[in-house]
Amino acid sequence: MDRPIVPNLVLIDLIGAFLFGLEGALAGVVANLDLMGFLVLGFVTAFTGGIIRDLLIGAIPPSSLKDWRFPTAALAGAASVFFFFPIIHVIPLWSLAVLDAAALSLYAVAGTEKALLYNMPPVVAVLLGTVTGVGGGVVRDVLLAQVPTVLRADIYATAAIVGCSLMVLALKLKLKPALAATLGGIVCFALRSIAIWRHWNLPHFSLR
Amino acid sequence: MDRPIVPNLVLIDLIGAFLFGLEGALAGVVANLDLMGFLVLGFVTAFTGGIIRDLLIGAIPPSSLKDWRFPTAALAGAASVFFFFPIIHVIPLWSLAVLDAAALSLYAVAGTEKALLYNMPPVVAVLLGTVTGVGGGVVRDVLLAQVPTVLRADIYATAAIVGCSLMVLALKLKLKPALAATLGGIVCFALRSIAIWRHWNLPHFSLR
Amino acid sequence: MDRPIVPNLVLIDLIGAFLFGLEGALAGVVANLDLMGFLVLGFVTAFTGGIIRDLLIGAIPPSSLKDWRFPTAALAGAASVFFFFPIIHVIPLWSLAVLDAAALSLYAVAGTEKALLYNMPPVVAVLLGTVTGVGGGVVRDVLLAQVPTVLRADIYATAAIVGCSLMVLALKLKLKPALAATLGGIVCFALRSIAIWRHWNLPHFSLR
Repeated sequence: MDRPIVPNLVLIDLIGAFLFGLEGALAGVVANLDLMGFLVLGFVTAFTGGIIRDLLIGAIPPSSLKDWRFPTAALAGAASVFFFFPIIHVIPLWSLAVLDAAALSLYAVAGTEKALLYNMPPVVAVLLGTVTGVGGGVVRDVLLAQVPTVLRADIYATAAIVGCSLMVLALKLKLKPALAATLGGIVCFALRSIAIWRHWNLPHFSLR
Repeated sequence: MDRPIVPNLVLIDLIGAFLFGLEGALAGVVANLDLMGFLVLGFVTAFTGGIIRDLLIGAIPPSSLKDWRFPTAALAGAASVFFFFPIIHVIPLWSLAVLDAAALSLYAVAGTEKALLYNMPPVVAVLLGTVTGVGGGVVRDVLLAQVPTVLRADIYATAAIVGCSLMVLALKLKLKPALAATLGGIVCFALRSIAIWRHWNLPHFSLR
Repeated sequence: MDRPIVPNLVLIDLIGAFLFGLEGALAGVVANLDLMGFLVLGFVTAFTGGIIRDLLIGAIPPSSLKDWRFPTAALAGAASVFFFFPIIHVIPLWSLAVLDAAALSLYAVAGTEKALLYNMPPVVAVLLGTVTGVGGGVVRDVLLAQVPTVLRADIYATAAIVGCSLMVLALKLKLKPALAATLGGIVCFALRSIAIWRHWNLPHFSLR
């Protein structure tokens, strides 16, 4: 059950936890929270997506509670904000968005993979991969009383869905699992990054 | 375990998913979201209530992830917003509230039914039926950074509780299950609709 | 599995449910909600923390749905707001914060205890104890579209973490379980109360 199709799935997940921990803590700094507030935001951003996925597929207790490396990676990410702090006002905002795109891609791929391991059908695996990728950010934004990025940004959930779908398709076509995952992750990351860069939009349906 | 007491439970659930999908997507249009944003809102509105119920009774993975007909119904509901779009400015607001009352009633009945199937005691079945009915709308409103209808509208959770209680009571009195469910659903729908129409209020306890 | 290490764990939990039910309902009064609105807030405040813990450790259905005494305690707490109502404008605000500190401590201790019963490692038990303590308040605040206390108050999650850690440490040192739980609860309560009284702060990392 827990033998990954993709080698280094755990590594992918750990890097994602580090990045999301870092990003959540930075959101806490921006919101002028205290030390504990930004640790909480770091953990929430790093774990909620995976926890929702694990609850839905019945992987209980969730992996982030079973394996000490995940909390450690998220904590390290949140703590690294201290080191960035002296230079935080010179970090360009787009670099945060790129960090976020990277973590989104890593989590989406790892989530799809884990859902497949638990015998979910392909469409559900794509959905759960997307939820893994966007879930943490949604809860972080809700806690900060903001409308979540996933609803505001045009190509966000879309990038995750495309990346996860491509990965599932590549696995169906008997590509090597590591290749399929890499392909899905890169496409998700590229799509999200280009969307930030070029201000790509999906069609809006406005009443105004 | 999965043989329903009420015939056509699945049909009830599917119509509810269609209506909530439609309604969630309309909320997305009103909030000026993009295409993906309103699909997300449609899915969230249609599934969160049932997913919370399924997690609480241990029906994992939740039925909305196991059965392709549920996502399809919700998607069809969300997509039908396209067809309504040209006439959306002439749709009266009360018709949305009536749609919502219908979906609330269908989900409340189906949720009560499923909780009873999983051997929950009557009071818990009423509670879970209510959660099934109101849950999706709560999460939709939270994502839009609004105080949920269930807290603002006077007769909303109340209508679901009355309808679910009546259904459970009718089952205790050995009424035919289909009759009990119909009775509960109609009373919930009627109560909510009349409350909208007549601006019925529960007592307020204001400090102001 | 369900034999508690700490005697009277259920009693601790019931008092906590009463206090959180009372406090949630008061928050509903302050927000000018109707009768049903403040019952919903009372239940949400009293149960969400424990339900999240139970879902994460696989104790399904959650204890608050299995044991009629928990909803009854929360309902009694919410209902007692009626009796306080005539004198509600003379209740000082700090007394609400002390009520909250008491409920936080009781839930944190009970949550840690239950996590240990389900064989969670010590660090996870501390985390789950904290989630049990703060979870209900977080969801209550999110429903009221406010940034949760746990992110705004400096010593809140911190107090729970310190109390739970002390309890786990005392159990490791072979103290009597009842003593360990009492110690953890008192320290959590004292820390939170003193923080309210003295306006203690954790370091902030502000961009402003």
